[in-house]
Amino acid sequence: MPVAPLPDGVHPAWLPSAALRAVGSRRVRVVGDGPVVATVRGEVAAAVAEHGGALVDDGPVDLELVCAPDGGEPDPEAFVVGRSGTTTLVRAIDGVGLLYGFHHVVRQGESAFRGEAAPERHAPRQPVRMLDHWDNIDVHPVMGQVERGYAGGSIFYDDGVVRADLSRARAYARLLGSIGVNRVGLNNVNVHRTEARLLTDLLPEAVRLAEVFRPHGIRVHLSVSFAAPMTLGGLPTADPLDPAVRDWWARTTAEVYAAIPDFGGYVVKADSEGQPGPFAYGRDHADGANLLARALAPFGGTVFWRAFVYNHRQDWRDRTTDRARAAYDHFAPLDGAFDPNVVLQVKAGPMDFQPREPVSPVVAAMPRTSLAVEVQVTQEYTGHQKHVCYLVPLWREMLLFRPWGEGGATVADVAAGRTGAPAGGVVAVSNVGDDPFWTGHPLAQANLYGFGRLAWDDRLTPEAVLDEWIGLTFGEAADVREALHDIMDGSWPTYERYTAPLGVGFMVNPGDHYGPGIDGYEYSSWGTYHFADRDGLGVDRTRATGTGFTGQYPASWRDVYESTSTCPDELLLFFHHVPYGHVLRSGKTVVQHIYDTHFEGREEVVRMAGRWARLEGRVPGEVFERVTALLREQLRSATEWRDQVNTYFWRKSGVPDAHGRTIY
Amino acid sequence: MPVAPLPDGVHPAWLPSAALRAVGSRRVRVVGDGPVVATVRGEVAAAVAEHGGALVDDGPVDLELVCAPDGGEPDPEAFVVGRSGTTTLVRAIDGVGLLYGFHHVVRQGESAFRGEAAPERHAPRQPVRMLDHWDNIDVHPVMGQVERGYAGGSIFYDDGVVRADLSRARAYARLLGSIGVNRVGLNNVNVHRTEARLLTDLLPEAVRLAEVFRPHGIRVHLSVSFAAPMTLGGLPTADPLDPAVRDWWARTTAEVYAAIPDFGGYVVKADSEGQPGPFAYGRDHADGANLLARALAPFGGTVFWRAFVYNHRQDWRDRTTDRARAAYDHFAPLDGAFDPNVVLQVKAGPMDFQPREPVSPVVAAMPRTSLAVEVQVTQEYTGHQKHVCYLVPLWREMLLFRPWGEGGATVADVAAGRTGAPAGGVVAVSNVGDDPFWTGHPLAQANLYGFGRLAWDDRLTPEAVLDEWIGLTFGEAADVREALHDIMDGSWPTYERYTAPLGVGFMVNPGDHYGPGIDGYEYSSWGTYHFADRDGLGVDRTRATGTGFTGQYPASWRDVYESTSTCPDELLLFFHHVPYGHVLRSGKTVVQHIYDTHFEGREEVVRMAGRWARLEGRVPGEVFERVTALLREQLRSATEWRDQVNTYFWRKSGVPDAHGRTIY
Repeated sequence: MPVAPLPDGVHPAWLPSAALRAVGSRRVRVVGDGPVVATVRGEVAAAVAEHGGALVDDGPVDLELVCAPDGGEPDPEAFVVGRSGTTTLVRAIDGVGLLYGFHHVVRQGESAFRGEAAPERHAPRQPVRMLDHWDNIDVHPVMGQVERGYAGGSIFYDDGVVRADLSRARAYARLLGSIGVNRVGLNNVNVHRTEARLLTDLLPEAVRLAEVFRPHGIRVHLSVSFAAPMTLGGLPTADPLDPAVRDWWARTTAEVYAAIPDFGGYVVKADSEGQPGPFAYGRDHADGANLLARALAPFGGTVFWRAFVYNHRQDWRDRTTDRARAAYDHFAPLDGAFDPNVVLQVKAGPMDFQPREPVSPVVAAMPRTSLAVEVQVTQEYTGHQKHVCYLVPLWREMLLFRPWGEGGATVADVAAGRTGAPAGGVVAVSNVGDDPFWTGHPLAQANLYGFGRLAWDDRLTPEAVLDEWIGLTFGEAADVREALHDIMDGSWPTYERYTAPLGVGFMVNPGDHYGPGIDGYEYSSWGTYHFADRDGLGVDRTRATGTGFTGQYPASWRDVYESTSTCPDELLLFFHHVPYGHVLRSGKTVVQHIYDTHFEGREEVVRMAGRWARLEGRVPGEVFERVTALLREQLRSATEWRDQVNTYFWRKSGVPDAHGRTIY
Repeated sequence: MPVAPLPDGVHPAWLPSAALRAVGSRRVRVVGDGPVVATVRGEVAAAVAEHGGALVDDGPVDLELVCAPDGGEPDPEAFVVGRSGTTTLVRAIDGVGLLYGFHHVVRQGESAFRGEAAPERHAPRQPVRMLDHWDNIDVHPVMGQVERGYAGGSIFYDDGVVRADLSRARAYARLLGSIGVNRVGLNNVNVHRTEARLLTDLLPEAVRLAEVFRPHGIRVHLSVSFAAPMTLGGLPTADPLDPAVRDWWARTTAEVYAAIPDFGGYVVKADSEGQPGPFAYGRDHADGANLLARALAPFGGTVFWRAFVYNHRQDWRDRTTDRARAAYDHFAPLDGAFDPNVVLQVKAGPMDFQPREPVSPVVAAMPRTSLAVEVQVTQEYTGHQKHVCYLVPLWREMLLFRPWGEGGATVADVAAGRTGAPAGGVVAVSNVGDDPFWTGHPLAQANLYGFGRLAWDDRLTPEAVLDEWIGLTFGEAADVREALHDIMDGSWPTYERYTAPLGVGFMVNPGDHYGPGIDGYEYSSWGTYHFADRDGLGVDRTRATGTGFTGQYPASWRDVYESTSTCPDELLLFFHHVPYGHVLRSGKTVVQHIYDTHFEGREEVVRMAGRWARLEGRVPGEVFERVTALLREQLRSATEWRDQVNTYFWRKSGVPDAHGRTIY
């Protein structure tokens, strides 16, 4: 299968022609059959055509890519790579393993063709590496076409229909395949009217998208509405225990599989933020999830059931209700009740993709349930792809968190099934759109790349992942590499510094979630409060005096979080309400810490912008200009954050800045 | 001309059949010709047909309506009414005066036909009594069809076109004619693309609307875009001093008058909140206004040029910029520079239709300029027609304010030209839409009625106006009358109590302006701040230490407002930043006043709702139900206001409520 040409003006992301030079200048043999092997062959053919190598069937070869059964290898996604004499050999039992092995070689570049290397097996550390698209088919009047999308319209849909021209989607599937993503959710988890019909009369359109992803080893999923038996099927109920409802799902699912034999399954947001669900019928989430699981089981499908369930009509006056508790309270009691092909999709933190949250206690609470940890590649709360915010360090910190304390398993271990729990995986919300740079901010491509790589192997460091991405995207110039590390490595902590302090979260403008709104959610129904008064701030989530949320963790963390003397400073205000004068480990008071980090964070953006300015002429002009413009916006926004946060706390606390800087 | 039938299900407002019973059961003669006399004749014909009277040409009459020249009477809108023997006689020199006289008799009901009464002349106290419609033709994605409209869609426009069926507009024109409104602005002052074309290719549609209003003595106006010579005319500039621009306006205006000979003129929002204007060409507002005035002058047209000009991209950090100063700073220096047919349309307060503001100092600053005072009948900041808020007391207080102090002229005097300044008038933004009750909240009809009556005669008391409205709308039952006075008379002060305190203003949710958002505009660019910190709140607008805004008033008020010891308490925080412990004339501290008024205001809504509940069966069922539902919402909203405002100030001040009530 030939490599789909990139539409005019679209940035090649991490697969520009130059990234395939090392492979493309070699003699390469590809052995095997099937659609994904054909993709590998197409990649090689395109690369050698461009760089002077050859795709050969015999004779001496520099690179041999072999897809063949291997008695010992259980994992069709695994590959073995080694080098002997002058030949680099990649073996896999399936096309998808071969594709991953091929891109492994691409990432290695020239070094894949030097010296000797003993055969080394590579296999993904997570079985599920999924990207959810919150794309709508119809442009939603409030949320736009891509909910929480900051990179233009959908690459799948025009307003109202699946695109006639799917070349962007094809190029996207190629990018995802190259980083090991193996599942894609095709539509928004908030399922509106037209999107619901992808399951029925618009199924032929979903088939077209499945065909786009299949050659890259990616199975597609549909987000479905729990009310579909009523809205699409004309039944009087969607009760999961009603036989007619069961039949409807079974019949409908069979039709989906008749059209898409490798269909991945469903994604469901039920009884959450207004979406329909089993509660309406007095059933629980296990009843709901198992209903769909049983329809999918005969075909090997999976239902991803989101655990993002909470009361979004909370009364801000009521300090006993704690949204952070909600997922655990709803789901932990159901451990063991879910069918094997249900994956419970749990947001990594207990709230909602904030720049800093503790890990969700659900992860440690459901040993008999498949869990998938969900993060956001799209920068809903991290700067809307207008701010540089390299998120791999955040995700890695959460994936390597050890819920049972030192020496215990990590979150990644739980998700991967390495703790004995059934395996799940990792899921992220995509950050792409029809913007020429895919992600709005060109540097936000690194988050998409990094998600795939980290999902493949959580042991990779964020710096190493970024380093790969820089090399592939920008080539090998040392000054560019150094500058991008300097700008991006610490950009998440920088973002954290100038926004909400010490894990308190939110403080964003309601609705769009961009820019400071210190009291923006303080008197709302969303359960996201900071409780700042003239004496202090933070949310008391202790067992002793607060909401008891700390009690949802295993003993080690339960006690660490319970006390201000052991709670990590960066999460202090997530777990505790403290006076402004509370002294942090740094020796600073909370309020001085707020002032300092906000002044510093904003200064770091100034420095970042200065560093970038020196790259003029060293990176492509259109990248330089886009990033330059966005850094201007980031600086404007960071200045606004600094001044609003500092002013708010100065007005409230009355404590002057120790360094006498300007606060308004 | 027959009275247009009211479409099915539409509430008759203050002209139900019963309101015309006294007239309709008499023998009535109508003498005169022309379209407005025909309207009067149609009214009489319909009323007598319904109530058993007769429209006669001779013989004994109970009511004689005579339109005839009268050497002494200069005002075509005036009428003389008297009673001699068994005949009530209304005389006017023009149809419109006769129409007003007819409705005067309608309002009097049976008492118009009792005893003797010497002839009494009635003439409007304001020459211009205008309603502006902020209606869009196309539904605006953010603002909807009617900007700041809370009563459904436009009665003029469907989405995209002028309605084929204008029967609602006809019924509306009849209602307006009955209360003396004599001009209507047909489209939103924020002129979008389609609406701009009412001036050119959509002019035939404006003609249809003009025909609707003409028989009721109402001249129509169009809001126009200052950029129209470019956007509609294809010119490279809209520079007011460019001859081609002048020619374009002259030509275009002539075409409008060819189609609508009694066209009223233009309404313009220029260089305000993003609208185009003369500043782009280095010209001032007089250049801009006179450009249009000169195009209109040959035809007797007027341009209403809005003085609502300020910097809406203000920096909240900058306390020297004061939006309250803006209109004066922009326009006072231009006094004398405007052509005679320019009316400067000045918002009554210096900010933006808040529940409590001082009167704009512009009113006293431009003795050589025609001024129209603008108020909002639509309840943008006064509860979105979900809250009962009878606004006539607010408008009257502003109209009777004496900018030069005790014994000086009133605002109404200035607007009417009674101070020697050229006459302007009063203008309001309409509150009607295609809701069956016209105004969403049935009781908000009283604001529309009251605006017309107060514009006619500012000496009428709010209670008397309400009394008229109750009688016409609900009939003469004493218990209903008493209950409605009880609910409505004090509803504006009640609304003020539970919302932003002591004239500080805003504290609303950004964007929609409904419900509390204490810090909603505090860090925004809109110039609307309260500056609350842990010690106090309010805006220092003094000359001594603040923005100097007080200096824009004539001496008497300038000094009164300058000092906290003389500034009226209800405007204290508009003019001063004071500590929470500042003691008001009531003996209460500011913060205790905030707590008390918020508890009290909310309790008044409880009482209001209880009072209304007892009217079940005493008012029409659909009115009862609508108002009952809205009172529920008002109570919910007032509770939210109470709790958010009190909590905000308790958290900030740390001062406990003297009465130990619950604050969160």
